[in-house]
Amino acid sequence: MLHTLPTERPITPLLDTIGAPQELRRLNREQLPLLAEELRAWLLYSVGQTGGHFGAGLGVVELTLALHFLLNTPDDHLIWDVGHQCYPHKILTGRREALLTMRQQHGLAPFPKRDESPFDNFGTGHSSTSISAALGMALADRLQQLPHRSVAVIGDGAMTAGMAFEALNHAAHTGANLLVILNDNDMSISRNEGGLATYLANNLKNKLDGETTAALFEALAFEYSGPVDGHDFDQLLPVLSDLLSRSGPQFLHVITCKGKGYAPAEADPVGFHAITKIEPLAEPPSHPPPAKRSKFCNIFGRWLCDTASQDEQLVGITPAMCEGSDMIAFSSQFPERYFDVAIAEQHAATLAAGFACAGMKPVLAIYSTFLQRAYDQLIHDIAIQKLDLLLAIDRAGLVGEDGATHAGCYDIAFMRCLPEMVIMTPSDEDELYRMLNTGYHYQGPAAVRYPRGAGKPGKGLVIPVTETCEIGKARLLRQGAKVALLNFGPLLPAAETVAEQFNLTLVDMRFVKPLDGALIDELARTHSTLISIEDHAIIGGAGSAVGEYLHQKRLAVELICLGIPDQWIEHASREQQLEQCGLDAEGISECVSEVLSR
Amino acid sequence: MLHTLPTERPITPLLDTIGAPQELRRLNREQLPLLAEELRAWLLYSVGQTGGHFGAGLGVVELTLALHFLLNTPDDHLIWDVGHQCYPHKILTGRREALLTMRQQHGLAPFPKRDESPFDNFGTGHSSTSISAALGMALADRLQQLPHRSVAVIGDGAMTAGMAFEALNHAAHTGANLLVILNDNDMSISRNEGGLATYLANNLKNKLDGETTAALFEALAFEYSGPVDGHDFDQLLPVLSDLLSRSGPQFLHVITCKGKGYAPAEADPVGFHAITKIEPLAEPPSHPPPAKRSKFCNIFGRWLCDTASQDEQLVGITPAMCEGSDMIAFSSQFPERYFDVAIAEQHAATLAAGFACAGMKPVLAIYSTFLQRAYDQLIHDIAIQKLDLLLAIDRAGLVGEDGATHAGCYDIAFMRCLPEMVIMTPSDEDELYRMLNTGYHYQGPAAVRYPRGAGKPGKGLVIPVTETCEIGKARLLRQGAKVALLNFGPLLPAAETVAEQFNLTLVDMRFVKPLDGALIDELARTHSTLISIEDHAIIGGAGSAVGEYLHQKRLAVELICLGIPDQWIEHASREQQLEQCGLDAEGISECVSEVLSR
Repeated sequence: MLHTLPTERPITPLLDTIGAPQELRRLNREQLPLLAEELRAWLLYSVGQTGGHFGAGLGVVELTLALHFLLNTPDDHLIWDVGHQCYPHKILTGRREALLTMRQQHGLAPFPKRDESPFDNFGTGHSSTSISAALGMALADRLQQLPHRSVAVIGDGAMTAGMAFEALNHAAHTGANLLVILNDNDMSISRNEGGLATYLANNLKNKLDGETTAALFEALAFEYSGPVDGHDFDQLLPVLSDLLSRSGPQFLHVITCKGKGYAPAEADPVGFHAITKIEPLAEPPSHPPPAKRSKFCNIFGRWLCDTASQDEQLVGITPAMCEGSDMIAFSSQFPERYFDVAIAEQHAATLAAGFACAGMKPVLAIYSTFLQRAYDQLIHDIAIQKLDLLLAIDRAGLVGEDGATHAGCYDIAFMRCLPEMVIMTPSDEDELYRMLNTGYHYQGPAAVRYPRGAGKPGKGLVIPVTETCEIGKARLLRQGAKVALLNFGPLLPAAETVAEQFNLTLVDMRFVKPLDGALIDELARTHSTLISIEDHAIIGGAGSAVGEYLHQKRLAVELICLGIPDQWIEHASREQQLEQCGLDAEGISECVSEVLSR
Repeated sequence: MLHTLPTERPITPLLDTIGAPQELRRLNREQLPLLAEELRAWLLYSVGQTGGHFGAGLGVVELTLALHFLLNTPDDHLIWDVGHQCYPHKILTGRREALLTMRQQHGLAPFPKRDESPFDNFGTGHSSTSISAALGMALADRLQQLPHRSVAVIGDGAMTAGMAFEALNHAAHTGANLLVILNDNDMSISRNEGGLATYLANNLKNKLDGETTAALFEALAFEYSGPVDGHDFDQLLPVLSDLLSRSGPQFLHVITCKGKGYAPAEADPVGFHAITKIEPLAEPPSHPPPAKRSKFCNIFGRWLCDTASQDEQLVGITPAMCEGSDMIAFSSQFPERYFDVAIAEQHAATLAAGFACAGMKPVLAIYSTFLQRAYDQLIHDIAIQKLDLLLAIDRAGLVGEDGATHAGCYDIAFMRCLPEMVIMTPSDEDELYRMLNTGYHYQGPAAVRYPRGAGKPGKGLVIPVTETCEIGKARLLRQGAKVALLNFGPLLPAAETVAEQFNLTLVDMRFVKPLDGALIDELARTHSTLISIEDHAIIGGAGSAVGEYLHQKRLAVELICLGIPDQWIEHASREQQLEQCGLDAEGISECVSEVLSR
């Protein structure tokens, strides 16, 4: 058991001999516990250097070794649900040194990725996809008469999402040769909510009485085995070996400890879900550390508490992102109005709709990338019924190190086509607060999209919860000449720099829908070029909305849309991603120079 | 038991006294069986007059009466999942005569609709939303200390969708006063697939042995009751009365017979899921009936069989829409390559992704409106991984009588922002066949969107499965002057009429993505106005893509985008809806006249 993260490369003579799973399979099984120890030491060292998801990998060291030991990867299919737990898998599949580049630009991806290694059979990132994917592979192998085996490893947190249930249900029907391993640590990122977690806990508690036979999974026609201790090779190897030789859908319940082997993480698995890298302590900072910047999500958290204290009708809903969406204070101050529905975005949206129908005012806090999971519910249950609720869409735009799977680059495109939606893009913290007020008081579905991390701080004004923006009204921030910058969202500081530099007009558009048409009319008459700026895909984005308006009104001004180009933006820091997309001050400046030089 | 549909108004003296549920509650419970008989007779008569969903309503006549008899609707919340079964509910809640206008323009909606009646507590249409919505209402009532009760009635088919499971799981955790009634007729629209259906069947079979205690639902911490005969008031009333007085989440399993009381529907519940209205037989037709037109979905069905017979790697996947997507022939000719995953769109998409990773070529047949349920899977599992599969998107655009909930008006907006997607819009049957070929042979994710019903027939050519379109290449159909019509999809016949009328240029664009930029360059240089035409929302649609291109290339031509305006289009015939949106020849012609008269 380690109590601090190693800052020096650990000595790992056995691990040093394992360049690929083929070499692992040449070991005696008695060597596996030592290898597990070395692997865990390397993992702790490596993540300390780079930061990243942490607890999940420590929890599956033995399981990963056992699976690669028994399976014939990569021909056999091994799918890591979500992928937070894939670091030991990456270490064993030839990416041990590369792990030190994890989450960095051009470095290893933080999740399994098909482009990266043939051992990554399926790219993950979002939860609960593994059973569907593994089933597809198992059925494909059956049709092609290939002897490969398919294994999905899924956490108990991910089991709460409906698509996992859909896949179990279908798998049972097909009778495919599929092994689903439930990695049960009673956690998703936060503590699990819901009946299933309770069920699993009861099952574990009663494991010795022989009566509780995992009726849930047997009801779904899976053969259930377990629970077994996921850190004990003497339990893991025989049961896995047996299950892999059986035909039909098999289900193995494995109990693991998130953060296993690192004392602080075992004690605080939520805090150690992911960590930031260790900063060297050798040189004391020459300046006092900057005051901790609030992030957009913190402003949301504060707004939620402020408003809840004023309005008893407010309820707050999160799909398992209490910490990420900064709802901790709200959940402790207003526990009876706080609803963590587990990883269940579809349900979260329709639950909010139900609340709205019965006199409450729901605030659904959801990451942009996860709102994709609730798109139909947004249309069918919320928007068509014009229900009065607020979507607080966090992590909108580029999200940095988590890469393309987690980018929130499409929400404007998929929401602005819905009639009567109000869509707002705050440019700073004060604006976020004001727009949350605005959306909350608007009688219908409204969305505020804001990015990961800190933006431009507001002026630190104490904004009353009654202060709103006029719906569909932009702010003219600077009157310049020739070119007008139309800013949508948090890239305003870069736009301000460029507007000063070239004496441009600068508008903070605030609303993607409804657009401030009157102001666009005026700008189009008085400028030769409009440049829209947004942290969203160019295709279908806010600039595209401006373009539709210009064509509709036959306004012949030039329009340039700056945003995320039509490609997947790989993991890097958010700043690097913005630079790559030409969305930093330099990129915007280059665009303006080109326009002005014509 | 009736054997033919009554064509005359039935005599219903007891039903005539029931204008609202309040009046129902004044009856003696001994009168309910007679009322059920009259209600069923009225329902048969009414649906015979209008067409519509049929079997589901007949199956819940007694359940509907029992619920309104015991509940205090509309203060108590009663939610009909999907809503196919809401006709008896509409009859009892003051809409008996209006039922004769069902599915017609300005008539009753075919699903519960909040705008239509205070008794419609939640609008439905898509499946599996009822538990989430009812839970939201139950929790809202608890917070507001209101004594209302919340009941969700959900079919066993709808229970296969993941969001129902998400809601059950969360409901259990909250301990809310919620009654979920499983209306089990072993059907969704087609026969159910999956482990859950098997489970329910076993449970029913074993109901007398006392051993099978609905472990699945009790595992989810619901109190399980049943199964009871849903056509027997002596069973229904006491158990409902008891459950409604209990606190905490309750689950009642009711066995019903779809089509109950109408012999042909009981014998063929799939065929009688919905019916078309009875045509009067009095006058024999003066002309021979027109040859039955093939529909777009039939072309897809034929293409699927043709291609499957040429390529053993093809697999076909449907989320419970075997008949609707016309996969019956495929399912019988290639049963081992046919996968009906039940109502489980998310799983369907990721299953397809799994197949694609393991050497097969999946074809996912899905309605546009249901693809909304699989949007995240389309992005995260298919598009990011650039997997090689084909989406056959049926019911794209306006769908007529099913109304706004089922319209497929957003798929272009939500797909064209995804890098490397190919999106095609066939204008006739031959083009559909060719584009299915094209998408199938394209190495990556490709989508073909085609509408409900019949379009312009092709030339009846026998198109070989190898005949493809050049990716991103439009077809110039007519060279005219001043104005160019850019057609995307099945509205081409109207566009042709108008092009002839005014001597316009007419292009069948074929591809929304990639666009034929070279042709647009040329058209923009040689015409004063471009008019895009599509059966999709104007916002974010194909015309918007043309607009983005024009701005990007600084082409100053006027662009007018014809499509579905920014509003929900209510149920009516598809022709009426197109007319309402100005998408028929007359509407397009008016637009052109206005342009030419300037």
